[in-house]
Amino acid sequence: MSRLVMKFGGTSVGDVDRIRRVARIVAAERKPGRGLAVVVSAMSGETDKLVKLARDAGGALADQGAQFDDEYDVVVSTGEQVTTGLLALALRAQGIPARSWQNWQVPIVSDAAHAKARVDSIDEAKLGAAIDSGEVAVLPGFQGVTAGQRITTLGRGGSDTSAVAVAAALGAERCDIYTDVDGVYTTDPRIVAKARRLEKISYEEMLEMASLGAKVLQTRSVELAMAQRVPVRVLSSFVEPGVDNPGTLVCGEEEIVEKQIVSGVAYSRDEAKVSLLGIADSPGVAAQIFGRLADANINVDMIVQSVARTEGRQNIVFTCPDRDAPRAKDALLALGEAIQLEDIAIRRDVAKVSVIGIGMRSQVGVARTMFSALAGKGINIEAISTSEIKISVLIDAQYTELAVRALHSAYGLDAA
Amino acid sequence: MSRLVMKFGGTSVGDVDRIRRVARIVAAERKPGRGLAVVVSAMSGETDKLVKLARDAGGALADQGAQFDDEYDVVVSTGEQVTTGLLALALRAQGIPARSWQNWQVPIVSDAAHAKARVDSIDEAKLGAAIDSGEVAVLPGFQGVTAGQRITTLGRGGSDTSAVAVAAALGAERCDIYTDVDGVYTTDPRIVAKARRLEKISYEEMLEMASLGAKVLQTRSVELAMAQRVPVRVLSSFVEPGVDNPGTLVCGEEEIVEKQIVSGVAYSRDEAKVSLLGIADSPGVAAQIFGRLADANINVDMIVQSVARTEGRQNIVFTCPDRDAPRAKDALLALGEAIQLEDIAIRRDVAKVSVIGIGMRSQVGVARTMFSALAGKGINIEAISTSEIKISVLIDAQYTELAVRALHSAYGLDAA
Repeated sequence: MSRLVMKFGGTSVGDVDRIRRVARIVAAERKPGRGLAVVVSAMSGETDKLVKLARDAGGALADQGAQFDDEYDVVVSTGEQVTTGLLALALRAQGIPARSWQNWQVPIVSDAAHAKARVDSIDEAKLGAAIDSGEVAVLPGFQGVTAGQRITTLGRGGSDTSAVAVAAALGAERCDIYTDVDGVYTTDPRIVAKARRLEKISYEEMLEMASLGAKVLQTRSVELAMAQRVPVRVLSSFVEPGVDNPGTLVCGEEEIVEKQIVSGVAYSRDEAKVSLLGIADSPGVAAQIFGRLADANINVDMIVQSVARTEGRQNIVFTCPDRDAPRAKDALLALGEAIQLEDIAIRRDVAKVSVIGIGMRSQVGVARTMFSALAGKGINIEAISTSEIKISVLIDAQYTELAVRALHSAYGLDAA
Repeated sequence: MSRLVMKFGGTSVGDVDRIRRVARIVAAERKPGRGLAVVVSAMSGETDKLVKLARDAGGALADQGAQFDDEYDVVVSTGEQVTTGLLALALRAQGIPARSWQNWQVPIVSDAAHAKARVDSIDEAKLGAAIDSGEVAVLPGFQGVTAGQRITTLGRGGSDTSAVAVAAALGAERCDIYTDVDGVYTTDPRIVAKARRLEKISYEEMLEMASLGAKVLQTRSVELAMAQRVPVRVLSSFVEPGVDNPGTLVCGEEEIVEKQIVSGVAYSRDEAKVSLLGIADSPGVAAQIFGRLADANINVDMIVQSVARTEGRQNIVFTCPDRDAPRAKDALLALGEAIQLEDIAIRRDVAKVSVIGIGMRSQVGVARTMFSALAGKGINIEAISTSEIKISVLIDAQYTELAVRALHSAYGLDAA
């Protein structure tokens, strides 16, 4: 027996007609000797509606996790449950044996961190036996059940992660994520008309792409797929079965024969640059600063340290999500005396542009190409950070599109 | 410890404001030494919406129980689940410890007759301990879980039955059914302005009232309350706590000191009269007729048999729900030869009017009062049927209101 997991997001199951198309797509993947499990999201709009109801009913509680989140999960999890029943019915209407499996029926056990739970374990015994018998299993994404039998949700977008977790537990050959785009692109096609769909991309590259704002797959789902070595295919849910729809395969590096130096160019406009000027240049200061930011739950990205003009002083520049910038400032001003801060400056009109590729590891000159391409367009670089497979630069936000296009050309990614 | 079960229907929880009022009503019933369980319906309109989705997805399957009903239950049961979470949140927002309990968490085990299941057993151990600790339990009405862990629903209106079953399992002092009327009336107040709210009514009388079209309580819930000796109070959910809202207590006869000869006057316009004329007057004919009707799932009510003018022939007249009349005719015509039917006549503009009272058992002259009152208004009686605590007559539908008002006066039920 082989096993395949398929996942359909909210817009793919947005109404009964679309659910019928999903049933046709599932039907086309069904063949002797292959068990199918399908993970579904709530119909688009439903989760928002349920979230609003829960927040209205909870009133002031809605911002106090412990008193709110468990019942929030009870309310919000019904969205996916509805879709499981509807898809099971749509499959049966096409003559395909199918049934829904709620998380407590499998069970798919999560921790008790309501509204942002993580899957701990999936008992695949009954589920696996059912799909091996030829009955399609339809499961709700984005949720679980605690050891104490309470309903949890994994947080918004958690359906991708559910699907990968189910695929791992079932030992599936692959997890197919059907979505509203037809694959992963070398860059955002809305900015670069010559962007190309990638046939394959490594987990590591996809992780960098996902966390950099190419919102095709949820970061956690890619991490899990990488850890569990589950091949994930991203493809369009708006294509009827039979029509060419290869998508992009997210897989281990070893599966990729021709490793590109740069596979893609990502960008994020949701950045702020925080400059701490003239702070004490003594051991432990950086630890105090970033410790305080971590306590405030602020996700710091690039960090650049430099010597200040004043003797015995240094400057530290970092970036964080734009919406967190005011909180970051408050947190740091509160530190005031301890770090002897002279001044703090926040710039919110910046963007981060990155080039990503596993081939970078064994190549020199990748950074030079990047800096030359940007310089050629007169774009100033405000900060740089690098990892093994990525180079990111911070630039003035108004040059974002220009920079992405220039880099896409410079690395030879433009479609013919 | 005492325990109380409260139940709120769909209009009572129709939006978040109403759910907040329900929370205030529950709060007012909370006192030391009393555990509270609250059974809720889906927000009004939600069940209809979910039923439509399931029928759309199922297509032609929607009329084939076995292939449809289990997943229909998965879809439709989410309506109540949402309300349980919202009410638990609304209670907590008022500072009251509360949590939702889904049926599989209790568990409330039903048979596997999906879409029309019956509750088999309720494990009250965890639930009872929780409410005795002062935490309000909020449960979804209208559903259960099978021994095989599938979700079931009890059929439309089953929430009253759920509430009574929970009250029985918890050994509750009472089950309070909050609804959109403020109690059980001597007759329909829309027809008789002088109708009075009854303080108490016996299970037996309520059963006759319920099955005769006074749709305050579902018949099955009253049967269960009678069998389990659970006192049930019907009262308004639109009254703020603190305002007088005594409702009507449905209880054992032994609790009712002053037994009324007639407690109420009920009517049903949803009747058809079927006359079978000149059929064979031989043993077994009636069995054939009513056996055939039972096979066709037609609920026959009054039956009157009389000798026909032709020698060796008889006439049989019966009533059935108006919508079933055409099917009844088809079923009987199919019998044709076997019963030697001369003619079949259907009259659809008839109504049944009934007087109900446990005091009737020990009183004579009750029927005479009824017939005189109707004769006094010139209303002809087409058929009569009686039970220990009820007399029903079939009349021309246009006289329904006139008859109900005349009987309400004749038995001294008019409010001062």
